Amino acid sequence: MTKIIECIPNFSEGRREEVIEGLAGVAKSVPGVTLLDYSADASHNRSVFTLMGDPAGIKAVAVALAKYAAEKIDLTTHEGEHPRMGAVDVIPFVPIKGVTMEDCVEIAREVGEAIAANAGIPVYLYEEAATKDTRRNLATIRKGQFEGMAKKMAKPEWKPDFCSPSGESAPHPTAGVVAVGARMPLIAFNVNLSTSDVNIANNIAKIVRGSSGGLKYCKGIGILLEDRNIAQVSMNMVNYEGTPLYRAVELIKAEARRYGVHVTGTELIGLAPAKALIDSAEYYLQLEDFNYEQQVLENHLI
Amino acid sequence: MTKIIECIPNFSEGRREEVIEGLAGVAKSVPGVTLLDYSADASHNRSVFTLMGDPAGIKAVAVALAKYAAEKIDLTTHEGEHPRMGAVDVIPFVPIKGVTMEDCVEIAREVGEAIAANAGIPVYLYEEAATKDTRRNLATIRKGQFEGMAKKMAKPEWKPDFCSPSGESAPHPTAGVVAVGARMPLIAFNVNLSTSDVNIANNIAKIVRGSSGGLKYCKGIGILLEDRNIAQVSMNMVNYEGTPLYRAVELIKAEARRYGVHVTGTELIGLAPAKALIDSAEYYLQLEDFNYEQQVLENHLI
Repeated sequence: MTKIIECIPNFSEGRREEVIEGLAGVAKSVPGVTLLDYSADASHNRSVFTLMGDPAGIKAVAVALAKYAAEKIDLTTHEGEHPRMGAVDVIPFVPIKGVTMEDCVEIAREVGEAIAANAGIPVYLYEEAATKDTRRNLATIRKGQFEGMAKKMAKPEWKPDFCSPSGESAPHPTAGVVAVGARMPLIAFNVNLSTSDVNIANNIAKIVRGSSGGLKYCKGIGILLEDRNIAQVSMNMVNYEGTPLYRAVELIKAEARRYGVHVTGTELIGLAPAKALIDSAEYYLQLEDFNYEQQVLENHLI
Repeated sequence: MTKIIECIPNFSEGRREEVIEGLAGVAKSVPGVTLLDYSADASHNRSVFTLMGDPAGIKAVAVALAKYAAEKIDLTTHEGEHPRMGAVDVIPFVPIKGVTMEDCVEIAREVGEAIAANAGIPVYLYEEAATKDTRRNLATIRKGQFEGMAKKMAKPEWKPDFCSPSGESAPHPTAGVVAVGARMPLIAFNVNLSTSDVNIANNIAKIVRGSSGGLKYCKGIGILLEDRNIAQVSMNMVNYEGTPLYRAVELIKAEARRYGVHVTGTELIGLAPAKALIDSAEYYLQLEDFNYEQQVLENHLI
């Protein structure tokens, strides 16, 4: 069976087109790797690349991109809305086909070691690849951002998983630090409400998200879509098998009824695995004894 | 882009295991072809094979299977519940990936010509490959079955599209005739009702199916599932883009309410393309601006 891993590196560059195109050029130059998509946001001053490849290709491209980012991006002069701690800020590996989460954890470790050795950037392993529970959450690692990293790393508990060749627990002077990890595919999924009251979206987001007692693998906030003047529950579904899309939608519908509000539509941002959507079809169509691997034709072709 | 065609030949043999395994052996021997599934039904005395392959492989395997069936299956002594007219009864080609319906029509014509020439079985082209409107429907071609075929074929309007090398419009003496065609993927999809009254299922089937004024690409009958003592609307969805699964389910739910009956579950029999299920997820999740080709991750991998 073909082995396919997704890698979604985030870079702290969303303005200089030549650097973004340079990163794309590096991504396209590695055999066994497909660059599916890349997009930059100027106000965040950040870009996100989506790559797919076999184990050897995906490891090689991650290391090559980290080296390129360290050469071209200088965090000492970087400004942008999005929190960041490194030139390449975060590198997650995601199991897609024929590989387990354990395989992706192993890949994250190998890539982390290679980035520290070859690009001189200290590496924290995060999420499923984390070596300590306190390092599972990216936001915890990134707290203090680039500017606070030297002080943070002086504390023994923040010694990185892989130091630069100097062996010091200190950030790279211009490229900062990077989080490398393994996780399930993340699905950006938003639910639009028949109201312009963002407080309602916020109240519902609080109920639906795992952190405040809701669905374990759902993160969510309420936002106002100013151009459409509607409130939205904006979510990241971090494990679609543990928390399926339909469950979030149905819970939001139920809570919205309290306000006489209904769901006017939903949005899938970027890519989702077929199974995340087919799980919802299975629920709504009330399919009995459905076998995803066997009964979906395309699973016999990949 | 990889070209993939599905072929689902039906054989008039569901009892003699050595013949069924012999057909499977032929199917597995052709390069470029995968035998996804085969199953036999003794009371129907019929077996269904599901094959997937590139154009060259799928043409070769269809001709080889027809020759083998003509040698091993004798319709003069065949008994079974399912209507049939040939040793290999029907051979549909279905576009799956990187091929158009027109490509499948061309393949059906080439395979039909080769079967008539090499296996001596007269061929009717049906559905999208049909040369006359009266031959689009398989049931019309098969009417009269094997036993009535000699008389039927004596009529000028039933001269086959490809005659055996003798040039006569007459069935093969033991292997009958075969319909070869091209069609959209067929999805066998059943909806179970909270009643044991098969009349209710029949009434609903009549409303939902295209032939009596319902959904154009839906065929359906009411049946009683004796082991579970529940009535079922048993459907063939012959074009899931023209008539999506969810639309049949929702129409059945609406009509069932007249009887105080609800849908207890549904069944997908065999395979369905991912898109047929994802179209239903898109409807029920109320996805806005969803792009199947772009946003489903696996579409970038096949």
